Amino acid sequence: MSRYFTPELAALEPYTPGEQPQNRQYIKLNTNENPYPPAPGVAAAVAEAAQKLALYSDPESGALTKAAAEWFGVKPENILCGNGSDENLMLAIRAFCAKDRPLAFADVTYGFYPVWCQLFGIPQAVLPLREDFTLDPADYYGLDSAKNAGAIVIANPNAPTGLALPARALAEIARRNPNAVVIVDEAYVDFGGESCVPFVQRGEPANLMVVQTFSKSRSLAGGRLGLCIAPQPLIADLKRVKYSMNPYNINRMTEAAGVAALADRAYFEQNCAAIRATRADAAQRLRQMGFTVLDSSTNFVFARTPRMPGGELYRRLKDKGVLVRHFDAPRLTDWLRITIGSPEQMQGFFAALEEILGR
Amino acid sequence: MSRYFTPELAALEPYTPGEQPQNRQYIKLNTNENPYPPAPGVAAAVAEAAQKLALYSDPESGALTKAAAEWFGVKPENILCGNGSDENLMLAIRAFCAKDRPLAFADVTYGFYPVWCQLFGIPQAVLPLREDFTLDPADYYGLDSAKNAGAIVIANPNAPTGLALPARALAEIARRNPNAVVIVDEAYVDFGGESCVPFVQRGEPANLMVVQTFSKSRSLAGGRLGLCIAPQPLIADLKRVKYSMNPYNINRMTEAAGVAALADRAYFEQNCAAIRATRADAAQRLRQMGFTVLDSSTNFVFARTPRMPGGELYRRLKDKGVLVRHFDAPRLTDWLRITIGSPEQMQGFFAALEEILGR
Repeated sequence: MSRYFTPELAALEPYTPGEQPQNRQYIKLNTNENPYPPAPGVAAAVAEAAQKLALYSDPESGALTKAAAEWFGVKPENILCGNGSDENLMLAIRAFCAKDRPLAFADVTYGFYPVWCQLFGIPQAVLPLREDFTLDPADYYGLDSAKNAGAIVIANPNAPTGLALPARALAEIARRNPNAVVIVDEAYVDFGGESCVPFVQRGEPANLMVVQTFSKSRSLAGGRLGLCIAPQPLIADLKRVKYSMNPYNINRMTEAAGVAALADRAYFEQNCAAIRATRADAAQRLRQMGFTVLDSSTNFVFARTPRMPGGELYRRLKDKGVLVRHFDAPRLTDWLRITIGSPEQMQGFFAALEEILGR
Repeated sequence: MSRYFTPELAALEPYTPGEQPQNRQYIKLNTNENPYPPAPGVAAAVAEAAQKLALYSDPESGALTKAAAEWFGVKPENILCGNGSDENLMLAIRAFCAKDRPLAFADVTYGFYPVWCQLFGIPQAVLPLREDFTLDPADYYGLDSAKNAGAIVIANPNAPTGLALPARALAEIARRNPNAVVIVDEAYVDFGGESCVPFVQRGEPANLMVVQTFSKSRSLAGGRLGLCIAPQPLIADLKRVKYSMNPYNINRMTEAAGVAALADRAYFEQNCAAIRATRADAAQRLRQMGFTVLDSSTNFVFARTPRMPGGELYRRLKDKGVLVRHFDAPRLTDWLRITIGSPEQMQGFFAALEEILGR
């Protein structure tokens, strides 16, 4: 860092995104992208929006907010559109936590939560998952008083494990923390998780907030779009921070892409079903090869083999043109997170894997 | 705000964007949009990018960074792409200021600077412009020691006044503040200001940073794209914060639009020239009607008439379907900021104005 950089942030360790190589063609199974294109209507919607780029986008993203409210069965004031779900998560953590109001989250989960804490000077209350990577909801009861937590964030299904909790377990955690906001990060929910949106529909618990993304199940990772679905007062809190940070956060093309993606429910359901089917095949085949594979409710599987450390297997797959994700973290070094691609991509992955490990 | 909202930010007064009415058709001269569409190549570039939306965008925005570096005659490591120039300004203020390192800026300038200060808990060193809204560079010398300023931000040309300083005056301010970063916000520079980019080209002063936007001169307000052009160590500082906040900040369509816009220099110059010509006509006509009009180096004029308070004139123009911007701030209540639209839009504006004030 330069000598002008503020010492306040000197200890900041920025998030490391998965590799996005621009040079070589890989079978890319490392960032949980969808192997299928977005809904057929997206291209035309984007082209139309591109005709009006000289005018600012709507800072309220009104058209998308309305479409999302209809999709989720809530009111427009229960919706906030974000520049990726990362933006909404960041706004929520900034809105509900503080230097004396920690953020609570699991030791094994999305790696960005601690980075936002560092950025905003928010203490972290890190709760270890069980040995088998499952989460015990009781560990999360009463954190608002025991730890003075301002918010609790739980990825459900979790990443990189792929394991899911039932929605009612999240609601119960919210009820047991009446003085904190429970943020449920549902990035992967459409591949087999149970959404907490019904609790937002009925407005109870009032401190439960859902964050979703268009990057996975709607094939719009390159469009950068996320949604927050929450009780109106919490959405209003996020808007307060958004309008103090970057009001015109969503461009016209992305908003139009989002509306078009939400308009095609059949395509969405068909894609999610295809990925679940491919996932079942991949998990079975990995297990046949001796891998331990966690039960996945997502578009990836988390797996390890006793025959090779995760880091080595990652590197050897990369040499063969297959990118998967390896996390160099204490409990995760043995494991690989493998995105579920198309059947053809998975064939390429297994071919490389068998070259490395033998059949 | 809800009872969950952090008291740390209780005093936050979010930025108020200019009206973006979605209902009625206005002659929209209130948010300094460009009346001409983006370069002809933009639509095709966006359509092509929309074919790859399932894959994450490049967090480094490599193609756009390269194109921008070529345009500005600097290296790629001197460029950072932002989700609007607002994002780059926010990153810079967060990187270089702190609770004991104020941000210095003029009393009359872009209204977002104090909002970011509130958001990050950064004290404000506010320096009044002269009575005629010009800025005395000497007021800004030695602020790094006298006020312990971490950064100084100067919009050049300034908004909403439209007045410009020569680039060497900004460079001198940077030299006279060796322990602070001087951020030159050149949102409007292409309409007649003098850019500080040549100082970045030669790497001196090392603490001078330029921020530009595609929203005005490149007709991409709805695409959300800004650039920071600065010495490499300062860009690296901003990236540190960006990667702790929202790494995938630019979507694929916006990046492609930016590359295409930069590829067409002739179109860009022709549009800027057209707006300067329309501006000269508009300023002359306003003066003939008895307005005081500041010398504008931007795509707007700042004007007042002794015959009607600014707020009233704003409202009466709005009733007639013409939107301009009025700022309800102490030194600005008499004034209106009027975006330079197409000749046809300006005809509509003057027709409404004459109905209100008489010829």
